[in-house]
Amino acid sequence: MGITTDIAKFAVSTSIEDLPANVLHEAKRDVINVIGCAVYSARDPSLRIILDVFAAEGGKPRASIWGTDRRVSLQQAALANGYTGHLEDYDDTHFPTVLHPSSPTVPAAYAVAEDLGLSGRQLLYATALGIELSCRVALAVHPWHYDEGWHITGTMGVFGPAIAAGLLLGLDQPKMVACLGIGGTQAAGVREVFGSMTKPFHAGRAAAAGLISAQLAAGGFTSTEQIFEGRRGVAAVLSAESDLSRITEGLGDRWEIFNNGLKPYACGVVNHPIIDACKALRARGVDAGAIESIEAEVHPLVPELVSIKDPKIGLEGKFSVYHCIAIGLRHGAAFPAQFSDAEAADPANTPIRHAVTLVKNESFEEDEAVVRLTLKDGTKLEERVEHATGAPQNPLTDAPLTEKFLELATPTLGESGAKALLDRLWRLDEAPNLSGVFANGA
Amino acid sequence: MGITTDIAKFAVSTSIEDLPANVLHEAKRDVINVIGCAVYSARDPSLRIILDVFAAEGGKPRASIWGTDRRVSLQQAALANGYTGHLEDYDDTHFPTVLHPSSPTVPAAYAVAEDLGLSGRQLLYATALGIELSCRVALAVHPWHYDEGWHITGTMGVFGPAIAAGLLLGLDQPKMVACLGIGGTQAAGVREVFGSMTKPFHAGRAAAAGLISAQLAAGGFTSTEQIFEGRRGVAAVLSAESDLSRITEGLGDRWEIFNNGLKPYACGVVNHPIIDACKALRARGVDAGAIESIEAEVHPLVPELVSIKDPKIGLEGKFSVYHCIAIGLRHGAAFPAQFSDAEAADPANTPIRHAVTLVKNESFEEDEAVVRLTLKDGTKLEERVEHATGAPQNPLTDAPLTEKFLELATPTLGESGAKALLDRLWRLDEAPNLSGVFANGA
Repeated sequence: MGITTDIAKFAVSTSIEDLPANVLHEAKRDVINVIGCAVYSARDPSLRIILDVFAAEGGKPRASIWGTDRRVSLQQAALANGYTGHLEDYDDTHFPTVLHPSSPTVPAAYAVAEDLGLSGRQLLYATALGIELSCRVALAVHPWHYDEGWHITGTMGVFGPAIAAGLLLGLDQPKMVACLGIGGTQAAGVREVFGSMTKPFHAGRAAAAGLISAQLAAGGFTSTEQIFEGRRGVAAVLSAESDLSRITEGLGDRWEIFNNGLKPYACGVVNHPIIDACKALRARGVDAGAIESIEAEVHPLVPELVSIKDPKIGLEGKFSVYHCIAIGLRHGAAFPAQFSDAEAADPANTPIRHAVTLVKNESFEEDEAVVRLTLKDGTKLEERVEHATGAPQNPLTDAPLTEKFLELATPTLGESGAKALLDRLWRLDEAPNLSGVFANGA
Repeated sequence: MGITTDIAKFAVSTSIEDLPANVLHEAKRDVINVIGCAVYSARDPSLRIILDVFAAEGGKPRASIWGTDRRVSLQQAALANGYTGHLEDYDDTHFPTVLHPSSPTVPAAYAVAEDLGLSGRQLLYATALGIELSCRVALAVHPWHYDEGWHITGTMGVFGPAIAAGLLLGLDQPKMVACLGIGGTQAAGVREVFGSMTKPFHAGRAAAAGLISAQLAAGGFTSTEQIFEGRRGVAAVLSAESDLSRITEGLGDRWEIFNNGLKPYACGVVNHPIIDACKALRARGVDAGAIESIEAEVHPLVPELVSIKDPKIGLEGKFSVYHCIAIGLRHGAAFPAQFSDAEAADPANTPIRHAVTLVKNESFEEDEAVVRLTLKDGTKLEERVEHATGAPQNPLTDAPLTEKFLELATPTLGESGAKALLDRLWRLDEAPNLSGVFANGA
């Protein structure tokens, strides 16, 4: 039939048993990561605006808003959790396309699984396939689509929740084809809104749009059979060029989900290799007070994008390689706490920021950096990072993912609440259903 | 600031008193027309699929689904009424752009007005401005946008409900700018889904998307200030070319709402001038049984698009100029009843269909036609239509709009229910609120 049918066929004919164990584990890591981000942002005042709309709308309390005691309708949970998942831009990144697949996919899958009493393993299965296939769809239109001004998380992101929710609702192949049609035609989101609440809204809207596509398709709603490849389909209309063969290339053998990297640091990726290097130097015992001078050899995008010398507030700190070097050497971390206003204003960072000299290296990859220290006693130390943590070549491992989750969840849930939730999430594949995961208002 | 601010400023600074009486009357005609379509389609089995999703979601019963006894949340009412409004493709058409502005705009405005207890006059005011401005936005990207494969009712259609709902929610200028940003980035819908339920879903989705934009903006949600004119905004990303000056050209002096035509016949517009001519011949006393031969001189698109000679089912009848000539001459009408399966199969239509000869005229406008009859007694009769009924040059007047409404609403509400509803709708500008309009399950 065509590529749309190929996608639907792969999705509905792949069983849990067909998925390699490491793929299911990777899906679990994606779930933990995005829930950590969402729980952290559940305290953000902007969520209240969305919750007020929900309160006026009403709805059956069938699905959790992560990190709150609110239970809302499935559509509402998908929208809210997709929003908070992406709000801090700290979720994940499919490196080949800059799609953030988990914030749209996981909230839709989670809401359906929670409502229907499905197992944690089924949630991971649907998440794995939703992320896998939405990343592949994104590949087919990248880079043209993004370069034209589309926010790919809002557009191609819709296929992840459509597929994941569709699988959990038990769609057969023709209904999955319709689900892709209903979802694909809702692809939306332009980059003009970046820097406002409407950017993370794209992820929440994609989650809800994908979910309703599956809900409608389950009831027999009709759509096109060629949403991707059709003459007026998504590839033709939303991208100057496309290569649909990338969707199915090695499908089932090579898993694109491993190219989805979990962000270790709460700032733009250009700073990541430098923070890695500073963290490593600190781990080698370097005392920040003993540093005489710092040379950072970096990709040319670094001075272009993150060159604020003396950030005054936390948000500016994210756009300051100097601040990132200081917190990396002083704290060995770059969580949201290290980008607080208090940390940005801490005078202890100033001498370190001022000791830095940037050296551009045109031959570097974007995730490559070298940091060279000269200590006051004359000692010279060097740390070279070839691939930043979180890149496909150097994935964030389970230990720092645990650390990241606890750092994010603790301010919202308290230390014991965060630890208990994380424990339940790591054991998701054993959970007969999701009813206890967010128990007790967590 | 820019065109987005210009639009918001015009919307929020135009009061009810600023609107000419004929503009408010035109808005009322648009409301009556789209409600008639929605009430007719409220019996369509596909609406049940949507209602089942709503039932699972739940919601406060604060707004009516027209033509049913269901009350649902505002978002749900906007989605359902937008869907049924456009389902038969019998609503309205902004002739310069093929935007169908009422199906997205009126459901959102109606839901807010109904919920807040606002007057009928306020509904008409918000509707007038929503339609006016969404038609103007559509003008700015037409024809490029549609030619690229976008369904303009799903995309630019979102601005009508955003503006109308935003006005009724009392947004100030900065919030209306944000509302346009949240709405505009949700513009979606490709033509690949035409011929399926997903096409009218575009209108419902646009209604709900516009509505939530206004709801979020009212709560302080932030967005871009340049959703149209920005480098990554709607005009640049969703259209190869654009002319933003068309949005504000003559704004407040020349009213684009008058270029929105109400469809007199339940089929594609290419058949409309021919039906007009046949209806006129019938009114002159022609007996269908007395006809020997028929020559129809038509635009070249007619043989290309509507050339089914012997339609067997009602849907085929819509794509048969031969059937349209037969029902025009026999019934003087082209309501849904004349496109029923029974009518398509009625043998009384066969001799008329077979008596027709088509003559293409390359110089004709699309809404132009001549029909020449030769009767069995040798009499020759001719009827020339320069602009089909429903075109801006020949608007559907209030009397045939009344007839259309009753034809559409009667099967759902019964004769007295339909008449009573129509009476209340014609007196909308006197209604202190909308609570009685759809009373008693109507």
